[in-house]
Amino acid sequence: MTADSVPHPVDDLTRLVIGVLGGTGDQGRGLARRLAIAGHRVLIGSRDAARAKIAAEEVGGGPLLDGGLNHDIAAEADVVIAAMPWEGHAELLGALVGPLAGKIVIDCVNPIGFDSRGAYALRVPEGSAAEQAASILPASTVVGAFHHVSAKVLLDPAVDAIDQDVLVLGDQRAATDLVIAIAGEIPGARGVYAGRLRNCGQVEALTANLVSVNRRYSAHAGIRITDI
Amino acid sequence: MTADSVPHPVDDLTRLVIGVLGGTGDQGRGLARRLAIAGHRVLIGSRDAARAKIAAEEVGGGPLLDGGLNHDIAAEADVVIAAMPWEGHAELLGALVGPLAGKIVIDCVNPIGFDSRGAYALRVPEGSAAEQAASILPASTVVGAFHHVSAKVLLDPAVDAIDQDVLVLGDQRAATDLVIAIAGEIPGARGVYAGRLRNCGQVEALTANLVSVNRRYSAHAGIRITDI
Repeated sequence: MTADSVPHPVDDLTRLVIGVLGGTGDQGRGLARRLAIAGHRVLIGSRDAARAKIAAEEVGGGPLLDGGLNHDIAAEADVVIAAMPWEGHAELLGALVGPLAGKIVIDCVNPIGFDSRGAYALRVPEGSAAEQAASILPASTVVGAFHHVSAKVLLDPAVDAIDQDVLVLGDQRAATDLVIAIAGEIPGARGVYAGRLRNCGQVEALTANLVSVNRRYSAHAGIRITDI
Repeated sequence: MTADSVPHPVDDLTRLVIGVLGGTGDQGRGLARRLAIAGHRVLIGSRDAARAKIAAEEVGGGPLLDGGLNHDIAAEADVVIAAMPWEGHAELLGALVGPLAGKIVIDCVNPIGFDSRGAYALRVPEGSAAEQAASILPASTVVGAFHHVSAKVLLDPAVDAIDQDVLVLGDQRAATDLVIAIAGEIPGARGVYAGRLRNCGQVEALTANLVSVNRRYSAHAGIRITDI
């Protein structure tokens, strides 16, 4: 299924197979777990297929979870989440231009650095990780989302619902609507349209502020948008 | 009173006289109104003293509100809010280095542009308006705050309480604590520490996203931080 053939609205969202590139990291495993619980077949990708399969087993999402090579899951999935570390973002996407063509790519990567004073936003020449993805993947539809969800919370079996909004950014309405719907499948979460891709940099960078909040208040902070 | 002499904690916060530079704009008048209602003497500053006095009368904050020249209110106030348009930010602060020395300067300026596709974040060489202020005012203590509060909501007499958190950023704990306390004087608002000044750029830029939210959902969106 390509982005062009995604039904609008999707009558049964959970039919969509979701791939998670770099899915063995905390954020990727957390999203994979919640989306499998929601009823999706979810494929965790890694450069090491055995590691991906182990992650799929350990994450506790049930029989809907499987693992494989990044390239293979990019080819098989209907919608792909880019969840690799920022350091490997451009290189991995650049190797997957073919299998990702025509698909919606959800970028949740935060270009953040850490030093003795805490977290800070890294400068990205393209403006944001999502815009970098869009420039590398001209035949894909890139949507920014899931930047702020705490991996710890997503992976915690004791947490039934997460208390936050998922800011969704992109330039194509059908694609952002689909990702808003996917976000809404995670109990407690709500997808909110938050602008075009050119305004994704500050949403990614805001993760550094949430790290500061977490340190100051000993929390797993998220954000909610009021008055909507 | 200088920043050094601000009591920690302030035993009677409302004794602090608050100046609002560029206070005849919507954001400045809105904050002036709410802080005067909270019990502060608030001085609205402008390059035109008569215009400032008219704004102080019209804004409906009562006898605690007055207006005057930016330079005079910078000299008289204990704490100063920078609420001028981004275009005049550097120039006005540069003219007030002397009267602002030793004081806490709360910067709420958002470097945002608009075009046919909506709002977008402007690039700021210093990283943010707040960091620009800090570089212009080395003898002041700059705190970033009040970026997201809707001027319309602040000015609306029908709105008793605003539903949002005020993200407060700065490098000196006593100063951010004071501004968190001031934010908390506005009914419904809560001040939340959100990191060092170097992480203020994305908080300012996030205003562009809230503009997008407002357009999509016909709202006056704000943000709340969850889990704290």
